[in-house]
Amino acid sequence: MQGVVLVLNAGSSSLKFAVFETAEGRLAPLGAGQVEGIGATPRFVAKDAAGRPVAAPSWDAGGAPANHAAALDAIIAWLEPALQGRPVAAIGHRVVHGGPEHAAPVPIDLHVMAELQELVPLAPLHQPHNLAGIAAAARRFRGVPQVACFDTAFHRTQPFFADTFGLPPAFHARGIRRYGFHGLSYEYIARRIAAEDPALGAGRLVVAHLGNGASLCAIAGGRAQASSMGFTALDGVPMGTRCGQLDPGVVLHMIDAMGMSTAEVARLLYNDSGLKGMSGISHDVRAIEAAGGEGAERALGYFAYRVRREIAALATCMGGLDALVFTAGIGENARGLRARICEGLGFLGIALDPARNAANAPEISAPGAAVRVLVRATDEERMIAEHTLAVIAEGGPR
Amino acid sequence: MQGVVLVLNAGSSSLKFAVFETAEGRLAPLGAGQVEGIGATPRFVAKDAAGRPVAAPSWDAGGAPANHAAALDAIIAWLEPALQGRPVAAIGHRVVHGGPEHAAPVPIDLHVMAELQELVPLAPLHQPHNLAGIAAAARRFRGVPQVACFDTAFHRTQPFFADTFGLPPAFHARGIRRYGFHGLSYEYIARRIAAEDPALGAGRLVVAHLGNGASLCAIAGGRAQASSMGFTALDGVPMGTRCGQLDPGVVLHMIDAMGMSTAEVARLLYNDSGLKGMSGISHDVRAIEAAGGEGAERALGYFAYRVRREIAALATCMGGLDALVFTAGIGENARGLRARICEGLGFLGIALDPARNAANAPEISAPGAAVRVLVRATDEERMIAEHTLAVIAEGGPR
Repeated sequence: MQGVVLVLNAGSSSLKFAVFETAEGRLAPLGAGQVEGIGATPRFVAKDAAGRPVAAPSWDAGGAPANHAAALDAIIAWLEPALQGRPVAAIGHRVVHGGPEHAAPVPIDLHVMAELQELVPLAPLHQPHNLAGIAAAARRFRGVPQVACFDTAFHRTQPFFADTFGLPPAFHARGIRRYGFHGLSYEYIARRIAAEDPALGAGRLVVAHLGNGASLCAIAGGRAQASSMGFTALDGVPMGTRCGQLDPGVVLHMIDAMGMSTAEVARLLYNDSGLKGMSGISHDVRAIEAAGGEGAERALGYFAYRVRREIAALATCMGGLDALVFTAGIGENARGLRARICEGLGFLGIALDPARNAANAPEISAPGAAVRVLVRATDEERMIAEHTLAVIAEGGPR
Repeated sequence: MQGVVLVLNAGSSSLKFAVFETAEGRLAPLGAGQVEGIGATPRFVAKDAAGRPVAAPSWDAGGAPANHAAALDAIIAWLEPALQGRPVAAIGHRVVHGGPEHAAPVPIDLHVMAELQELVPLAPLHQPHNLAGIAAAARRFRGVPQVACFDTAFHRTQPFFADTFGLPPAFHARGIRRYGFHGLSYEYIARRIAAEDPALGAGRLVVAHLGNGASLCAIAGGRAQASSMGFTALDGVPMGTRCGQLDPGVVLHMIDAMGMSTAEVARLLYNDSGLKGMSGISHDVRAIEAAGGEGAERALGYFAYRVRREIAALATCMGGLDALVFTAGIGENARGLRARICEGLGFLGIALDPARNAANAPEISAPGAAVRVLVRATDEERMIAEHTLAVIAEGGPR
């Protein structure tokens, strides 16, 4: 394939991108960045191939993009000099929901686009933005192959008992399943661990993807076994602004006894709960830690408590665990929270080396601990680029 | 105290009772039974002091009680010869919800009755029946002291992180908490284990109360640390007809995307899910096991899978566990399910002795296993009688 792979990750108010050069089937990063604050105060941030911040347009004096299509135009204008005339040969998209069937990335055609449109009710807050990113790219790059890479795909091979809720089977058949998300991150981590240490990669991992969105995944032999997330991005552990695990009876009570509308409940559970709602300070662990006090203790303590429960629960889906891997913003950086999560998990064979943990070392478990505890940076954009390359090269899903 | 303690446990369509004689502060059972099928086809079943079935009225030819008050009259008529003139000195009631404050049983007066009435929205399917039972007893036994024993009370001392959801603290303050239920059963089991083996009673137990309603509780040093149940009786592990853990987003999806009313969702989650909904056979494990096939496998496999996850999750609330105790109908009798639950929990130190498990032996763990696995019959009625006696004797909550 000649040219570069462009990766697009369209969120509700941001459009992230990354560009990779292909050389002998391997991917080398050329640059990455994002337009954030779309619809409010857009800002362009960019990094070079080595991850160093580089100059990007400022819109303080006007000219800011009003939507995702305009944001993509700004990205392309910024990219052009960097690409030095190399064409965009393929575009890979992060798509949050692939529905019950897609267990692998797919080339996007009219049929697939219509299918993904039908999945909007399963992810109303995310899927429309992903599809808007695909449409914007199709208008700007006519004829360039596009590939959809799903956050749900990695989980689709999980066993039935991890996939179902305790409802009549008709609901599972109608798509009410534990889809799980962050699948591209899990897949990246699973492959990376396997590349570093094939024996461990063939073993039993609990991967904790702890970012603004957060979930955990049990992976055995490189395959997903279970996830802390369920049908939507609400379930599992508490997140920046989302509640995590909640008694379904609470939702009914909010509506029937407290008089809230479903829109009000959704806003509360998606936007005003989790670390932000519990702390009253921020959705950001760094800001909460800096502020301290009772609200910080409440939010961080609860976060650690629920993550700890999920680690053990997910281990039962594999008959135990060989390694715990922390990734994503909190997982890679929040040493205090990592230490707190692992406290009291000695009975599972988990013990941290305080100095290594404080240094964000790649391996933070205490020497001789039965379970290895690792810290790895995730790279969803690279995973998307790899998938895209493979789908294009092989003319089908990898 | 002269006379007997009458225990009443009023459910939606049943009124259970038990009578205990007090002798030197100890309780001896005189008989027990229930009127079931109230509102449909009522049936009276009774047992003597040794638990053997005894003759009870048949209403095949008419005269069946139409409501809880009439059922209580039938129970009293049946009891009179058995009591041989001994007066009812006190009445203890199982009350499902004591709200955020009641961590112990209380004597019932007008104030308490009004308070319990205010808690109906927290347990709309159970609390009204409990209060109807109290009213029926007050009409029939004027001036006899009555005591409310709460299913939530035992859990009220659990730590904050086990008590809260990931919502803003205002919701916790307004009573949106993980109350936990089956507290009288857990308290009975905790005291019984402590009486049998004080060291174990001071240790870390996970108690699995698996009946038609089901939950698990972490108990350390005799005190509740966390429960699988949340705000309502829906949360946690799947039950006879209830769903157990469910993504709150599923409830919103059922209402917003599937067009269900909250009443329809509640009916589905409370009455048509769990073992019954998943199997398509029955809510009863014995009937499901007898029928076999794909539906049975689906329901029983999911049940075991979720219970297994909860055992490990609850162990993290205590830094590990010393014993796992099975109780209630399924826990005491379903040897196949117990074996299936414990499969793959070897990494926690749990291993069953197949012969002991098949015999429903009091201790079913394999010799030398790090975690003891016990089977104990629960006795909520005795726990209520003990509480009632103590409250009356001491003139206040025990």
